[in-house]
Amino acid sequence: MRRHYATIKDIANALNISFATVSRALRDAYDVKAETRELVLAKAAELNYKPNVNAKGLAQHRSYNLGVILPTITNYYFSTVITGIQEVAYGAGYNLVLYVTNDSAERERDMIGNLSLGSLDGLLVCVSSDSALSTGFQGIIDDGIPVVFFDRVVEDIHTSKVVQDDYNGAFEATEHLIGNGYRNIAHIAGPEELAFTRNRMQGYKDALKKHGLPVKKEWIVHSGFSQAHGEQDVARLWKCRQKPDAVFAVNDRKAVGAMLALKQLNILVGQDFGVVGFTNDPVAAIISPSLTTIAEPAFEIGRISCQLVLSHIRKKKFDAKEVVLPGKLIVRESSKKA
Amino acid sequence: MRRHYATIKDIANALNISFATVSRALRDAYDVKAETRELVLAKAAELNYKPNVNAKGLAQHRSYNLGVILPTITNYYFSTVITGIQEVAYGAGYNLVLYVTNDSAERERDMIGNLSLGSLDGLLVCVSSDSALSTGFQGIIDDGIPVVFFDRVVEDIHTSKVVQDDYNGAFEATEHLIGNGYRNIAHIAGPEELAFTRNRMQGYKDALKKHGLPVKKEWIVHSGFSQAHGEQDVARLWKCRQKPDAVFAVNDRKAVGAMLALKQLNILVGQDFGVVGFTNDPVAAIISPSLTTIAEPAFEIGRISCQLVLSHIRKKKFDAKEVVLPGKLIVRESSKKA
Repeated sequence: MRRHYATIKDIANALNISFATVSRALRDAYDVKAETRELVLAKAAELNYKPNVNAKGLAQHRSYNLGVILPTITNYYFSTVITGIQEVAYGAGYNLVLYVTNDSAERERDMIGNLSLGSLDGLLVCVSSDSALSTGFQGIIDDGIPVVFFDRVVEDIHTSKVVQDDYNGAFEATEHLIGNGYRNIAHIAGPEELAFTRNRMQGYKDALKKHGLPVKKEWIVHSGFSQAHGEQDVARLWKCRQKPDAVFAVNDRKAVGAMLALKQLNILVGQDFGVVGFTNDPVAAIISPSLTTIAEPAFEIGRISCQLVLSHIRKKKFDAKEVVLPGKLIVRESSKKA
Repeated sequence: MRRHYATIKDIANALNISFATVSRALRDAYDVKAETRELVLAKAAELNYKPNVNAKGLAQHRSYNLGVILPTITNYYFSTVITGIQEVAYGAGYNLVLYVTNDSAERERDMIGNLSLGSLDGLLVCVSSDSALSTGFQGIIDDGIPVVFFDRVVEDIHTSKVVQDDYNGAFEATEHLIGNGYRNIAHIAGPEELAFTRNRMQGYKDALKKHGLPVKKEWIVHSGFSQAHGEQDVARLWKCRQKPDAVFAVNDRKAVGAMLALKQLNILVGQDFGVVGFTNDPVAAIISPSLTTIAEPAFEIGRISCQLVLSHIRKKKFDAKEVVLPGKLIVRESSKKA
């Protein structure tokens, strides 16, 4: 059985002052004398008093918990975003409550339906691939709980959003392949419902157009985000009448899958075939040839998302901001041309 | 401002039954008639009643929160462990509250000191590299809050522990290098204070002894767990009078660092030099030559750790178990010999 923790009442009895005074002193209320507060804190330490956050939350209408909903944590991008969120939350005395949807809209809906909103002060959300129609978040915002979307956002919902500059990153990636002499550039994309996937595709298309290159529908392949999807996408491209000579991939995992599939086909990446990814996953520097990519500001996205949700919580008034952070082209071997 | 949620009182008024009956029905207490319970649940759904977990926690002495303390989440092993924990927690209606120590004993102590124990039903812990002397956990266990250690455990503390079979994995890895014809095998290890590092080192030493090979002190290098540490370790080994012809690394990130450093030295890994890692990080299959390694059961470690802590919470009586899960040798190119 759990030990009985010292309560506010125990401190009040020990000091022979009122419960209300102890409670106010522990809350650091303005109307408690400094010497009283010191006495209370000293006694609290002596009795090993631990605030019961449940009770503290009820009294202050604060839980000091932030919910984080995201598709997965077993990839570099998301685990780095959480690390950024965690740094800010830790500094502000907040805990993170983690909800991993496994990129399933069904589980996402289930988790949202069962959120104990009374015990969360705010939510940071990256939606699952197929939840574009999710309406659960609007209800949470209507209830006055700040929600900040990051990376995969729901466009119709008016709230703060933090994303990388998908359009310009994709434009720059594609233009880099063109600059290196590639002309038949395919795009292996993510699910079409996701805004960031559409934005990267648009950047790709506009770069081709700017340089007078045709946008071929059969060279744009939509699938999931895994390495295996990247391998499958190449197999599909290899069935086209005219094969591409380069690929811009929506993320590094798909780019790596594509490179492995091309190796199987005896295509020399970085000589006869160009590949550019998007993320700057550590694997990009390790794979051979090394992978040219757009570095995403994952840690910054986490940091700024958390700062935004905290400022929304403090102000209680909702002042939606959209933050777009630039990526950075990292040139390595995979985009070279012999 | 937040919307006022329907309360138990609202449901009681709407149905004209007592507060206590509604409360018992919502708690699924045994002394409420089935039809009453159905009525209450229907009305609760109609009024959009959301249990306040703070209040529910106070009433039930349960928070339905599990704390997870771990060094980092930006690596494959830890993010996979969390995913395993999450799968079990989600199924049991528990939330995960995440505490990332950045592998700093100071931050770990700070986090433990500030844990609101009243709002956690149990703790899953992987200690930081230099926290071997941490005593904070004993106090938590003494307070009756179940703690389960995973991966990096504190040996002196009597509680449940879940680890991979570090000794036998290391033994098998080293014996594999010997079987392939390598004789001068170095070990790039982790910090000596950590039990799992010591166990892997012992497996390495005993495999050498079994095959009559000398254990050379200068061929055992202790440092941190990053890729950069692996690179530095090779630099140190290259200062030895007699250079090794193979390396067993305590984890894959260090093995990858070693391989990159060896490439710089124009040493052909998988021909003139053998490398074996420990983890089976996805990068092991992607790097060229691909990395032979011991696959760790990371997801299983998370799953079983979470099952253990939940069973401790339910029983209220502490029945410590030590679970050791076997790894598996995955033979790839880096351990071949020409």
